[in-house]
Amino acid sequence: MKPISGGVCAPGGFLAAGSAAGIKRPGSTKKDCALLFSEHEATIAGTFTTNLMKAPPIAWTEGVCIRGSGRAVFINSGNANACTGSQGLQDAQETAEAIALALDISVTEVAVLSTGVIGVFLPMDRVRVGVHTCSAGLNHQGSADAALAIMTTDTVPKEAAFEVELSQGTVRLGAIAKGSGMIAPNMATMIAVITTDAYIVAENLQTMLRDCVAHSFNCICVDNDMSTSDAVLCLANGQAGLPEIVPGTADYDTFQEALRSLCIQMAQWLVRDGEGATKFVEILVEGALDNDAAKTLARSVAVSQLCKTAFHGEDPNWGRIACALGYAGVPFDTGCLQLALDNVEVVHDGLPVDYSEADAAAVMKQPEFTISISVGNGSGTCKFWTSDLSHAYVSINADYRS
Amino acid sequence: MKPISGGVCAPGGFLAAGSAAGIKRPGSTKKDCALLFSEHEATIAGTFTTNLMKAPPIAWTEGVCIRGSGRAVFINSGNANACTGSQGLQDAQETAEAIALALDISVTEVAVLSTGVIGVFLPMDRVRVGVHTCSAGLNHQGSADAALAIMTTDTVPKEAAFEVELSQGTVRLGAIAKGSGMIAPNMATMIAVITTDAYIVAENLQTMLRDCVAHSFNCICVDNDMSTSDAVLCLANGQAGLPEIVPGTADYDTFQEALRSLCIQMAQWLVRDGEGATKFVEILVEGALDNDAAKTLARSVAVSQLCKTAFHGEDPNWGRIACALGYAGVPFDTGCLQLALDNVEVVHDGLPVDYSEADAAAVMKQPEFTISISVGNGSGTCKFWTSDLSHAYVSINADYRS
Repeated sequence: MKPISGGVCAPGGFLAAGSAAGIKRPGSTKKDCALLFSEHEATIAGTFTTNLMKAPPIAWTEGVCIRGSGRAVFINSGNANACTGSQGLQDAQETAEAIALALDISVTEVAVLSTGVIGVFLPMDRVRVGVHTCSAGLNHQGSADAALAIMTTDTVPKEAAFEVELSQGTVRLGAIAKGSGMIAPNMATMIAVITTDAYIVAENLQTMLRDCVAHSFNCICVDNDMSTSDAVLCLANGQAGLPEIVPGTADYDTFQEALRSLCIQMAQWLVRDGEGATKFVEILVEGALDNDAAKTLARSVAVSQLCKTAFHGEDPNWGRIACALGYAGVPFDTGCLQLALDNVEVVHDGLPVDYSEADAAAVMKQPEFTISISVGNGSGTCKFWTSDLSHAYVSINADYRS
Repeated sequence: MKPISGGVCAPGGFLAAGSAAGIKRPGSTKKDCALLFSEHEATIAGTFTTNLMKAPPIAWTEGVCIRGSGRAVFINSGNANACTGSQGLQDAQETAEAIALALDISVTEVAVLSTGVIGVFLPMDRVRVGVHTCSAGLNHQGSADAALAIMTTDTVPKEAAFEVELSQGTVRLGAIAKGSGMIAPNMATMIAVITTDAYIVAENLQTMLRDCVAHSFNCICVDNDMSTSDAVLCLANGQAGLPEIVPGTADYDTFQEALRSLCIQMAQWLVRDGEGATKFVEILVEGALDNDAAKTLARSVAVSQLCKTAFHGEDPNWGRIACALGYAGVPFDTGCLQLALDNVEVVHDGLPVDYSEADAAAVMKQPEFTISISVGNGSGTCKFWTSDLSHAYVSINADYRS
């Protein structure tokens, strides 16, 4: 597995573009429309928010993924087209139709996603401008522009690509992603689009993607608010010219491993670029009854405001971690609790260790550290990633809309 | 129901005291030990945190409440005696024994509670000083000192008392409470001690208290972190000289109504004095399938970091409220959603209303306002109270321990 450049355009046969259509603000030159296009037939898989108020574009794009064939993904930022009812669904469909017309493909192969403010109808005149400029601008180096165009409160565009050796040749995987706030660890709570020139049918791609998302995008937290809008899509167009990747083969495992790594890399990036984040903290839980229990425990620490402010204050106040484990709702023997900040053990068999405060404080002063938690002898484990809760987070979100 | 002065000492036969024993900081003159004493036999009821890491004093005091007879409550602040294992339980018991000896009562009638930093053993030498000075200082005007002594990050001491007319005379209810951070809406997540000179047996008092707590302390949120330590206790000593209050009578209902009002008043006070709070927001949910569903929906809004930062920013960004309702995990017809900020309707039948931004902004600029939510035609309702998430919250909690 080798990192390469090119983002979503690194795999063969994918074009992308990003343009400014004034959706974020009329007349602004900030890019707010992105388009991804596969020159050839491609399979598509997706995972979506489970928020009951899911935005109309999500409903549209779920339909595309159920059919399993997708060649284009259009994304606008600045407006989530959420809480917009039947008008919102009609706007999503009209957007897809405009893309289909521009690219001469079937409307059923066009995924559309929207991210931004909730509760405002899409300005369709400007969306049509975006459809036009993006379609006209599609090119093999367009990934960076597309990554830029989907940003909201992100501070950096996020793209990555890998080359993976399979038994009979090389395939490529590429991704762009956005997400910084409204990030909660349940289902896809941001937007990521992944491309590959591997050949894999939609059903297998969906199974694989769901597993990869469970260990990546569903294991992160910035603020525990699950968005109405967000999604992970993966398109596979087979342009590497290799045989189909089928379950039960070494190639399947190799490819899944690569897809998972890419998802983890992008997911961690969202946390690193989390709104106001100054710390990147890995929560490692071991010894739980099963992986679900481990994830629940890890999430409880990862979302705790008191833990996150302690991370921000560089305060090795492990009592807050123990407290968050205690109210997670997962039973464990508190007498078996082990807690360490990097290598500094602070709790052993449920009791405070006489550790060096200076050592513990030194761990917390780092920009990245790991909190290792063991709750027993079970086989359940989970790695979860979170940020700190800072003044900047409050500023960003107290002033976002106005 | 008439407000009166005197706090926990307003009901007949209760004495209180608060003193500085150096538990918060050696040599400090900040009060950190409080004692409440009933001169006569009293029944006791309690509700406690459900945190798995519950502190040893909670385990001790639960035992007292199960037996139902309690005459003294000793509370120290500055150290939660939590995550302290068998040593912590022994320390709690030794504290109770010291109180029992000083007051010449049975150790089984002594409740002890601790609040403060987690994971540090109690400095028993200083606790003994506190036991001594509090026992010696007990008096009929001691409620204010006791309220002061149990504070941690609270900015104001909290006490209240009411006089209630029953069919054959007057009873009094008094309370002190603390709590500002680590406040989450599930079980008692702070400390409140309520006294009354009504005559009510422990079993009925327990039933009544549990119901009152469900509608007050369990309906508030500051930061959604459920403490390891906290409890609501109610002592009834019958010194008003009136007949027993029994279920199925008008007096029972009148008294329960008064107890609930007192609990709500204290609970709301905790939110108003929430760490860094500048707003007091009532979340009113109606039309849910049942009260539990309504509470889950209300809590989801109340704890959302994005909603709380929008409150702080005085931003009528109702999309965040709709979003938080959507991920609450409670099914409802999103086409039936109605949302109003005080009288300003912003969502009608699931769709944005063309409301005046100036009117909505004016609501949010107030120090207190109500968010009214209706999700259908069900009979389930809930009132929930929350604060905003401010820079001051981050400052307080990034620097608390150091």
